[in-house]
Amino acid sequence: MNLVKRLLLGRPLRSDRVAETLLPKRIALPIFASDALSSVTYATQEVLLVLSIGGLALLHLAPWVALAVVVLLAVVVASYRQVVHAYPSGGGSYEVVVRNLGRNPSLVVAAALMVDYVMTVAVSVAAGVDNIVSALPQLYPHRVWLAIAVIVLLIALNLRGARESGRAFAVPTYLFIAALGLTIVVGLTQFAAGHPPVAESAGWTIRPEQVDITGVAFVFLLLRAFSSGCTALTGVEAISNGVPAFQRPKAVNAGRTLVIMGVLAIFLFSGVTALSVIAQVRVAANPCDLIGFPTDCHSTGQRTVIAQLAGAVFGLDSALFFVVQAGAALILLLAANTAFNGFPTLASLLAQRRYLPRQLHTRGDRLAHSNGIILLGLVAIALIAAFEGSVTALIQLYILGVFTSFTLSQIGMVRHWNHELTGARGAQRRRIHGHRLINAVGAVLTATVLVVVLATKFTHGAYLVVIAIPVLYGIMRGIHRHYREVRRELEPERGDVVLPSRVHAVVLVSTLHKPTLRALAFARANRPDTLTALTANVDEGDTQVLRREWERHGIEVPLKVVESPYREITRPVIDYIKRIRRAGPRDLVCVYVPEYVVGRWWENLLHNQSSLRLVWRLRFEPGVLVVSVPWQLVSSHHQRIDRADHAPGRTRRGLG
Amino acid sequence: MNLVKRLLLGRPLRSDRVAETLLPKRIALPIFASDALSSVTYATQEVLLVLSIGGLALLHLAPWVALAVVVLLAVVVASYRQVVHAYPSGGGSYEVVVRNLGRNPSLVVAAALMVDYVMTVAVSVAAGVDNIVSALPQLYPHRVWLAIAVIVLLIALNLRGARESGRAFAVPTYLFIAALGLTIVVGLTQFAAGHPPVAESAGWTIRPEQVDITGVAFVFLLLRAFSSGCTALTGVEAISNGVPAFQRPKAVNAGRTLVIMGVLAIFLFSGVTALSVIAQVRVAANPCDLIGFPTDCHSTGQRTVIAQLAGAVFGLDSALFFVVQAGAALILLLAANTAFNGFPTLASLLAQRRYLPRQLHTRGDRLAHSNGIILLGLVAIALIAAFEGSVTALIQLYILGVFTSFTLSQIGMVRHWNHELTGARGAQRRRIHGHRLINAVGAVLTATVLVVVLATKFTHGAYLVVIAIPVLYGIMRGIHRHYREVRRELEPERGDVVLPSRVHAVVLVSTLHKPTLRALAFARANRPDTLTALTANVDEGDTQVLRREWERHGIEVPLKVVESPYREITRPVIDYIKRIRRAGPRDLVCVYVPEYVVGRWWENLLHNQSSLRLVWRLRFEPGVLVVSVPWQLVSSHHQRIDRADHAPGRTRRGLG
Repeated sequence: MNLVKRLLLGRPLRSDRVAETLLPKRIALPIFASDALSSVTYATQEVLLVLSIGGLALLHLAPWVALAVVVLLAVVVASYRQVVHAYPSGGGSYEVVVRNLGRNPSLVVAAALMVDYVMTVAVSVAAGVDNIVSALPQLYPHRVWLAIAVIVLLIALNLRGARESGRAFAVPTYLFIAALGLTIVVGLTQFAAGHPPVAESAGWTIRPEQVDITGVAFVFLLLRAFSSGCTALTGVEAISNGVPAFQRPKAVNAGRTLVIMGVLAIFLFSGVTALSVIAQVRVAANPCDLIGFPTDCHSTGQRTVIAQLAGAVFGLDSALFFVVQAGAALILLLAANTAFNGFPTLASLLAQRRYLPRQLHTRGDRLAHSNGIILLGLVAIALIAAFEGSVTALIQLYILGVFTSFTLSQIGMVRHWNHELTGARGAQRRRIHGHRLINAVGAVLTATVLVVVLATKFTHGAYLVVIAIPVLYGIMRGIHRHYREVRRELEPERGDVVLPSRVHAVVLVSTLHKPTLRALAFARANRPDTLTALTANVDEGDTQVLRREWERHGIEVPLKVVESPYREITRPVIDYIKRIRRAGPRDLVCVYVPEYVVGRWWENLLHNQSSLRLVWRLRFEPGVLVVSVPWQLVSSHHQRIDRADHAPGRTRRGLG
Repeated sequence: MNLVKRLLLGRPLRSDRVAETLLPKRIALPIFASDALSSVTYATQEVLLVLSIGGLALLHLAPWVALAVVVLLAVVVASYRQVVHAYPSGGGSYEVVVRNLGRNPSLVVAAALMVDYVMTVAVSVAAGVDNIVSALPQLYPHRVWLAIAVIVLLIALNLRGARESGRAFAVPTYLFIAALGLTIVVGLTQFAAGHPPVAESAGWTIRPEQVDITGVAFVFLLLRAFSSGCTALTGVEAISNGVPAFQRPKAVNAGRTLVIMGVLAIFLFSGVTALSVIAQVRVAANPCDLIGFPTDCHSTGQRTVIAQLAGAVFGLDSALFFVVQAGAALILLLAANTAFNGFPTLASLLAQRRYLPRQLHTRGDRLAHSNGIILLGLVAIALIAAFEGSVTALIQLYILGVFTSFTLSQIGMVRHWNHELTGARGAQRRRIHGHRLINAVGAVLTATVLVVVLATKFTHGAYLVVIAIPVLYGIMRGIHRHYREVRRELEPERGDVVLPSRVHAVVLVSTLHKPTLRALAFARANRPDTLTALTANVDEGDTQVLRREWERHGIEVPLKVVESPYREITRPVIDYIKRIRRAGPRDLVCVYVPEYVVGRWWENLLHNQSSLRLVWRLRFEPGVLVVSVPWQLVSSHHQRIDRADHAPGRTRRGLG
């Protein structure tokens, strides 16, 4: 077991090696920008899917929707560049809000970000698998299992630690940018040369879901398409959460990486959208609505927009088609990986501030926040399974959380600049005014989008997020309250602890064997004021045998038998101990429980079952100590030696 | 929780009330004979399904196959009547084999019987649901969940205890016998009167799976049909396992019930088969092989044979049709219930003889063997889920186990009579010869059928049983060996126990709060030779705070800090304790672990996580006691009061 863990996760890291794992820009870009860049693979597709509700009639509006998204993207990138410089400690949106808006908004942002991270994993992996299936259609029936396997792999990689996963993923990201960039350039060149690329779906017609789209319905559909296009913005904030992982000067490097990312995202998203219109790509939420779809629409799916474009430009059999698909799939997995960097950091921060369970703050082997990584992976797997890996279904849950944190962090930044203004003079004052303007525009725009998203996506699944964020908020408040109350309860006071006046030792006995004798000896070694052997009369015959053996061995400790009319030991033993406590309320009762220690897991099923419940219940009695007296069975020995041999770093460390 | 348990399971029974739960014949018949009688609902159908492989050509052979099954049934009933008289203690096949053939064959029978009980539940519930779905076709898509819900209900009913479930089920069994009997009589009368009933499927044709059926293939198919028909025999042995539950004279009453059951089973099975041929019932393993099947053969199923007959005789809209279906469904659920009586008794017997884990012998509330009931239910649910509730698939796994125990028990009975012969004289000797002949014929016949079943069903799923029985056998041998070795290891010897020379108390400390102070006080109350407070330096800042607090409170116990370069407490603490043990190998180390006791389950997630692993590891160190010092948080108080209030029988029992 330990050996497997070592092979998979590598050697554990010492605390003092944290500083070594800093990232240069060329490695940080693929790690932190992959989320935003990978959105390009599905953003255009989601815009087209919404417009398709009106059949072919509205598809020509796609470029205008895309333009609105690009403007928004530019504003949000500019806003977050300021966050990176103002708060280089890596708290990102959460820290901005905590510092400027106070506790309750910060918990809302934390909840929104947690939802966001989970959705990043689920959507990115589902979309990645869609792109794999577009290249290898025979995998279509297995896509949900494929997605789950990918998440399990990501969990394992991330339990190894940050840097190695970064390096492993750097090359494919650049491959994706190059391959998709080439597709766009070649496709536009073909268009300029007069023989534009034609998508495989160009000849298909879409059966409209809704035929009469005029007036309010038209505006609503357009807004909905815009909301879907806003998925292109997901992941923009990732860099602001990762600043401490950058090489020095951290803020400068992170800010530059953010701008590079923004330019690349705008180029790729615009290019894909333009090319989709040129190549006449047709998509529908349900392939059965596509008139002309060649295979059984129940058991096969459509190719992704990226796949259709690469196919149209290079041909569906060409090597370059497969390169584009591999790049798309890999950058999406890398995007999922972003969340595996961000979520555990955020959870650890919240756990440290006692809003989440303490064990999310414990650093595991390889310096990774193991518990957070595993938790994130499991929730994402559950979502993939629940929505059968459908990107379009999952994406409805994605954008709302993203824009909640966008809006709150921009409002926080406006407050930050207001604060900075006090005491500033002249040129500095004008500079701050400029900064504030950018964030104010960002706040207004993202708040507007938030309202639009809420209105247009609510019934399509976003309501789940509207439930999840307050629930998470409530849980965090509850945990915080609990820890605070416990802390207050445990605060030492003067004259608090009184030494118990007498110690009563009670040894639990079922049969007379070595563990019983050892428990009696150990109890006696602690020199109690009274010592009793206690047994419950579950079976009259067994009890008589025990009494006889007790006499035969001449054991001096008195054997007390309590009746057990309901054939269980818990209640009579608890009653007996309560009577001792009542007789001397300041006395201490030590209950010695002989216990078998076995070496193989299944042997635990064969022992110690009846005392488990008793030990659990005894914890509720004040003034009672439970002393487990382990008896190591022979089978446990190899286990002990095993563990000592494979213990992490034992030989390196000596015994200090 | 306790309240819910009480409402569902009733009050717990005292040990001395076991004798009250004896059953009169009219109640015992529905409980123990339902298994055999219910087989009638699917035995004919399974014969027809196999013959259908050859299309319509072979269906006329069904009565001959049924005749062979009826002969076998009569012989087996006669054989088991002798088992009931010879071994009235209720061990059934298992006891016969244990007494006459020794340990290894008896374990094979035990394994076969366990498989048999599990399959009884799975097959009966699946067939019961099929009959429900035949009456209410709209439930077809939910049949697997329906089956699982039924098993959960059976678990709950059986946890309440034997007699109540018997009474609850008595009426429906008689209803089934009456309703199906009436169907047969009315149907045959209609036939005699010249206008025979016509099944809804009479006009359909069957697409044969195998067209050329001649020579060896023909014989093989006929034997396979016979094997399938032998499902009519499943459950015949149930009464021999239930003798102690009968009213006195137990053996006589049980023997009479067995004969009544045999006559009823032969009448119903012959009648159903005859009527199926008359009404021209058509069935196929896959409804898509039925030419003429009216609905989508992928998403709907065929009606059961019983349902088709009741429909043909009374009409598919008639009240009587629904009565027959309700009776069939209910007797099948009652058959499943038989296993819930038999399995826990067998498991308890095996656990008492240390072939299964001890907790299967513990009698729970209401005198039922709760663990066995739950185990049986869970395995049956797993099988239903794995085979998607298909009776035909499950039945392949059923017959093999049944005939293994039939054969071995008949061989055992022959040996029993051989033994009885020694010393017998005259008339008695002739009587024994007669008894032996019956069992010998039974042994030869069932052994032949066992070989036929093995040959014809192996590749259709019976191979799973061929694997399962040896695996269970191996597990039982392993458990027995383990218990024997442990017992030998724990046998007290002279001069075995030496009183430890010195006691070292080590109190684990993370922060300085009330639980720590209490642990120190309790440790001191036990007057150890040395007393140390131990902390692991996971975080330098926290450790400094602890040191300062330690001084500020003026605590006299020395605080020992061990380094923890890998940010975990287990390894450094274990190392420290090992050093104490090395310095004084005869010394005792008591490790005091402060522990929080909380009232709500989720609070456990927020505490005690880091010490769990340490406590687990400490058990492997000899000469180390783990003393848990519970600190009852305020939230735990209401829990304690709750438990005391709802405790079973507390008020009735006083505090004795």
